[in-house]
Amino acid sequence: MQVATGQYRVASTIVKVQTEGREDLYNLSQTIRDFVKSSGVRDGIVMVSSLHTTCAILINEWQEALVHDVKAYLAGLISKDDYYRHNDPAWSDCDRHNADSHLRSLMLGMNLTLQVADGDVVLGEFQSVIVAELDGPRERTIRLQVMGI
Amino acid sequence: MQVATGQYRVASTIVKVQTEGREDLYNLSQTIRDFVKSSGVRDGIVMVSSLHTTCAILINEWQEALVHDVKAYLAGLISKDDYYRHNDPAWSDCDRHNADSHLRSLMLGMNLTLQVADGDVVLGEFQSVIVAELDGPRERTIRLQVMGI
Amino acid sequence: MQVATGQYRVASTIVKVQTEGREDLYNLSQTIRDFVKSSGVRDGIVMVSSLHTTCAILINEWQEALVHDVKAYLAGLISKDDYYRHNDPAWSDCDRHNADSHLRSLMLGMNLTLQVADGDVVLGEFQSVIVAELDGPRERTIRLQVMGI
Repeated sequence: MQVATGQYRVASTIVKVQTEGREDLYNLSQTIRDFVKSSGVRDGIVMVSSLHTTCAILINEWQEALVHDVKAYLAGLISKDDYYRHNDPAWSDCDRHNADSHLRSLMLGMNLTLQVADGDVVLGEFQSVIVAELDGPRERTIRLQVMGI
Repeated sequence: MQVATGQYRVASTIVKVQTEGREDLYNLSQTIRDFVKSSGVRDGIVMVSSLHTTCAILINEWQEALVHDVKAYLAGLISKDDYYRHNDPAWSDCDRHNADSHLRSLMLGMNLTLQVADGDVVLGEFQSVIVAELDGPRERTIRLQVMGI
Repeated sequence: MQVATGQYRVASTIVKVQTEGREDLYNLSQTIRDFVKSSGVRDGIVMVSSLHTTCAILINEWQEALVHDVKAYLAGLISKDDYYRHNDPAWSDCDRHNADSHLRSLMLGMNLTLQVADGDVVLGEFQSVIVAELDGPRERTIRLQVMGI
């Protein structure tokens, strides 16, 4: 077991992501790593939070063939054309017809917490942190916050 | 980048939620905000944890039409009437026949971590924190813990 | 509300898990409890992170009948034999044909954060922390990090 102590600090920043297409994946790993390194926090956690209800955060390998598969999987995960009250003007004032995007996003999750050690984000060799657009194209706001010593 | 330092503190509380129906959604956002504000923590994280295996925590927009859609989606996510050993008296002493509730809960997750900044929970304009009952009605125990400076 | 303050500390360790079968579940609760107790952290959080893209971390009841049901459910969650570019030598140099394992893992999540209080992990009576192998058998690396006071 490794143990460290010190002065607790919190640093945060906002990242804007311009997505393309209704489904889109964006690799945020390097942005997160750069932010953590510049924060001065060596041991703790970093949180990656989508401030939306139709845009998720996930981890996967960033391989071109697999990115294609993940997009195709997410596009078909939940039927877009089933009846939803959220898409029905009699029940809802939302004109985006995006109930399926809400459902996909809540299944995937909009917040991710990662370990920070030795001044860097702890990720496996094949792990990338990915913003998953599920109702684009839009400009998305992702908030990063690193906390520790 | 914004940076803050100070004396680390941890505050916790228990919230009881009485659910109705087998599936039910309960908006916990205001309860969490009030707890964080009263804790004195200005920058850090707050955790929202369901202490159950058939009751999940998720984020979504709290719109009446969409709440209806989410309940309907969760009710049909996993077949209740398929054969499960957990529902079979020959294999299991559980008489709730709720294997589907366990499966739905593990897909959604029972813990949520959120950023805290400037003394408030960081949530997007349309994000609400929701307790998702998947085997009610019951009284559920949710534990909140805020940590930071 | 309970409040505690003190000297922030971070402790971490690596756990190796040898899995059997393509799908496998491994109960990590006692390992995590022992780690937290030995760390000296009384109030804070503990993170459980799979450093892989085809091995997830989840919470469920550890009952033999239900463990069987969860394994069967995960085995069938996503079609293994559909066409995926990740499994096609024309598009991918991965020879594991495990696109379905990637998709299942990103749906379940590879990181779990839990509350720590009074020197122990906060888990409900029926909650166990489970490593879910989705492309085994393999030796898997799980990193634990506890943070707090």
